[in-house]
Amino acid sequence: MTTLLKEIRHNPLLWLLVLVPVVWAAQLIKPEAHTLLFVLSVAAIVPLAALLSRATESVAAKTGDMIGGLLNATLGNLTELLIALAALRAGQYVLVKSAIAGAIVTNALCMLGASFLVGGLNHHVQEYNRNNARFLASLLFLATIALLIPSVTAEADAPFTQTVSLGLSVLLIVTYGLGLLFELKTHRELFTGADHTEPDEEAWPLSLALITLAVVTVLVALVSEVFVESVQQAATALGLSPAFVGFIIVALVGGAAEMASALSAARKDRLDLSVGVALGSAVQIALFVAPVLVFLSYVIGPAPMDLQFWRGAVAMMLIAAMTASLVTNPGRSAWFLGVFLLIVYLIFAMTLYLLPPRI
Amino acid sequence: MTTLLKEIRHNPLLWLLVLVPVVWAAQLIKPEAHTLLFVLSVAAIVPLAALLSRATESVAAKTGDMIGGLLNATLGNLTELLIALAALRAGQYVLVKSAIAGAIVTNALCMLGASFLVGGLNHHVQEYNRNNARFLASLLFLATIALLIPSVTAEADAPFTQTVSLGLSVLLIVTYGLGLLFELKTHRELFTGADHTEPDEEAWPLSLALITLAVVTVLVALVSEVFVESVQQAATALGLSPAFVGFIIVALVGGAAEMASALSAARKDRLDLSVGVALGSAVQIALFVAPVLVFLSYVIGPAPMDLQFWRGAVAMMLIAAMTASLVTNPGRSAWFLGVFLLIVYLIFAMTLYLLPPRI
Amino acid sequence: MTTLLKEIRHNPLLWLLVLVPVVWAAQLIKPEAHTLLFVLSVAAIVPLAALLSRATESVAAKTGDMIGGLLNATLGNLTELLIALAALRAGQYVLVKSAIAGAIVTNALCMLGASFLVGGLNHHVQEYNRNNARFLASLLFLATIALLIPSVTAEADAPFTQTVSLGLSVLLIVTYGLGLLFELKTHRELFTGADHTEPDEEAWPLSLALITLAVVTVLVALVSEVFVESVQQAATALGLSPAFVGFIIVALVGGAAEMASALSAARKDRLDLSVGVALGSAVQIALFVAPVLVFLSYVIGPAPMDLQFWRGAVAMMLIAAMTASLVTNPGRSAWFLGVFLLIVYLIFAMTLYLLPPRI
Repeated sequence: MTTLLKEIRHNPLLWLLVLVPVVWAAQLIKPEAHTLLFVLSVAAIVPLAALLSRATESVAAKTGDMIGGLLNATLGNLTELLIALAALRAGQYVLVKSAIAGAIVTNALCMLGASFLVGGLNHHVQEYNRNNARFLASLLFLATIALLIPSVTAEADAPFTQTVSLGLSVLLIVTYGLGLLFELKTHRELFTGADHTEPDEEAWPLSLALITLAVVTVLVALVSEVFVESVQQAATALGLSPAFVGFIIVALVGGAAEMASALSAARKDRLDLSVGVALGSAVQIALFVAPVLVFLSYVIGPAPMDLQFWRGAVAMMLIAAMTASLVTNPGRSAWFLGVFLLIVYLIFAMTLYLLPPRI
Repeated sequence: MTTLLKEIRHNPLLWLLVLVPVVWAAQLIKPEAHTLLFVLSVAAIVPLAALLSRATESVAAKTGDMIGGLLNATLGNLTELLIALAALRAGQYVLVKSAIAGAIVTNALCMLGASFLVGGLNHHVQEYNRNNARFLASLLFLATIALLIPSVTAEADAPFTQTVSLGLSVLLIVTYGLGLLFELKTHRELFTGADHTEPDEEAWPLSLALITLAVVTVLVALVSEVFVESVQQAATALGLSPAFVGFIIVALVGGAAEMASALSAARKDRLDLSVGVALGSAVQIALFVAPVLVFLSYVIGPAPMDLQFWRGAVAMMLIAAMTASLVTNPGRSAWFLGVFLLIVYLIFAMTLYLLPPRI
Repeated sequence: MTTLLKEIRHNPLLWLLVLVPVVWAAQLIKPEAHTLLFVLSVAAIVPLAALLSRATESVAAKTGDMIGGLLNATLGNLTELLIALAALRAGQYVLVKSAIAGAIVTNALCMLGASFLVGGLNHHVQEYNRNNARFLASLLFLATIALLIPSVTAEADAPFTQTVSLGLSVLLIVTYGLGLLFELKTHRELFTGADHTEPDEEAWPLSLALITLAVVTVLVALVSEVFVESVQQAATALGLSPAFVGFIIVALVGGAAEMASALSAARKDRLDLSVGVALGSAVQIALFVAPVLVFLSYVIGPAPMDLQFWRGAVAMMLIAAMTASLVTNPGRSAWFLGVFLLIVYLIFAMTLYLLPPRI
């Protein structure tokens, strides 16, 4: 507990935690002030995500870069999953889908690019395990092929779209499970990164890390409710298109935790961890979170959700997967590769920002 | 002859050869029993394909993995060619085209994937000549670019489509010829696989192998006639869409011979032979069989055939070529790469299976 | 000056320089003879381009393969830029755009392919710096993603297309600048080709080279005016579609200078220079010339120009970038890779040639 308080005292970002109770106060007093609630809930999720990141790093510190990366991706995506669940319960399927697509694109382009850029500004050339990067980029490519299907067969009838989405969800989650078996069990020797013995910031005790994870998860779930309720009307008030909000803002807010740990790892020349977090997170959203949301929509949603995305979103996911595959192929990085990925991301973000709202 | 009989006695699959005369008997007695004829002819082609495979392996045994792979692909595709010729003569151009597209996708995804999976279950990591794999995957990519043209310019008029298809056929077959010159003559040293001195099953004498090839070819041609006549009505009776039948069933039946030799080579850690058979076969269908069928349609078909495929088929061929290129790039394989290719294949097969018949 | 005259005496191609004054004479006497003016101006640009090439090589001889390649690409593209400027001033935006798209495709497929073929006919296998090839192919891929945007969002309104084109132009030119910083300054050690100490043809003195560059630039600009005025009507007279003329003929004429130096370098086994010229030139047109033309259209054009290309052109640019990336990935070349690129180019050229004019 003392460790946690000391941490908060030294990290000004965590002072934003004070906004968590403010969100509920505002929600009770002014439930119709959507823009205010939107800004407050975004600002409150960021320190929560940072706490998650710090707690996860503590656990990861004892498990090695690769498992740590997987762990980060799993727990980092908790934020995305919780936001998507709130939207699913509210029946906002367009928001759920653009959050999924946006998270994939943001992780594979923006987070990976920012890691390469930050790493490259501190180190001339950085090496990382290309087997791991290739494996993750290939899985992402497979997922985008699957997500392409319901969109290109859109002229078929709705029952087909629903059935094929269910079938694809099963195939995706089976692939994810077999991929974990391959990476963590049968061929783990292919995925071990270079050893970095450099000592970390003092790692938290395991008990504190786990308790923090649990409590913060609940807090994120609660703030996400407020976020989802306010986001669309706030977007209209701010003159942003729903596509931009779902794709860019929700994805950046949801990914803040992983972004923080990916960048900090890149700065410390632990690029295996950065690539694992960024691509691993994109893979997990595509092959695990998306199918789980489809299954859960039968239980908690007002109607079954399919995997039919807006065609532009499918194209962006496909290009993101191909770009990530192209860039990580050599297993080496320098600052310009970060710029490269970020420019592709900016091309997409600018297009979505300028796109007239009706599309 | 004794060798052949001994072979048949020891291989239960070959007992199915008894079905070959049964097909003709059934055809004479009950020509309207389409589903029965369909099932019988499929079941009769399989042992014939196995015999072809065994005879080809005997010839290949004396010529090295690479030439053997090419030989396998050439003779294995005889089955596809004979089925396509039967369909061409009957004017069933939709069946011809979906058989071509299906054979490319099935060889590049299902056969290659099954080889990697079977090989990977028996060996931890397998290496193979990546020059050969890259060469074949690139040729496949080129062929899919060519086959894309008549489909994306579909708004143009029919004479354009016919002329451009003829031009593309010439370019494809010229590329195929120059590719063979490169692989077998000017740069053959780039394509030699690792030597495997491990002795094979007793190879047949060359004369027996060649006679078997000739006789079985004729038998396949005759059974294919029955197959083509019965397939569409049987499909309707079985509730399968024509796209699924042409793409998946015809391709699997036609490729049974190569599948058998690719899998047996993978089990013996001769992955160069497997990759050569699977990708080489896809390449040969795209760059040799397809153009030959276009040319022959002017002679034996009721009307000239073009190369305008259904857009979904083009997309699947393009994705298959890109996936094969991505997966074979490292020149190493493990079981998960097989799963990867098979999942992409399953995504396509499931979509075609679920697709409403009218599309 | 004596050097220049001696050069002209020994190079029959340069005798075509006599056509430069003939073009103006013809323009004055028979301004309505479009086909004649078209043929004359094409024939006059070729020796001018050759002179540019020779002068550039002289400068490049003192700066090493990589800088020389960049220099060649910069000055070689002067011809394209001058032709495009003449078309821009005449408000012929369709011609400008197809010249841009055609130059990208021609450089990445035809020029690179011809270099690999010519090099491969003289050398069994050639090696080159794959870092450089990868860097350029990746930049080309990024540019085609950017140029894809206004085409796939064509259903949006015109102001959106104009704004997004401006934004993309800024992103492209920023990427180009940062790419130069990376290649020439911060990471230049990654891009140095193998040393070739073999002496060149006697290099011109720097002063002669620079004066020739300046004078010939003015001449090309003047001949381009005649070319642009005559090209469309000549095309109609010759039965060629405007797409074919802009894409293939303008691109080949505009790229003649670089083609000459790329081929001569390939013959001398200086493939780093060939790849630098071919891909570097494609990259420079996509990331520098295209945005500059958009900016200049606000100043010298009759109306702002956007980056919305015909969808077929976008598809060809994207395929060209992917093919170049695939082929240059190994950093080794043999004659068949040249054939491969040229066949893809022929597929496009034949399609454009056969395409009915109305498209």
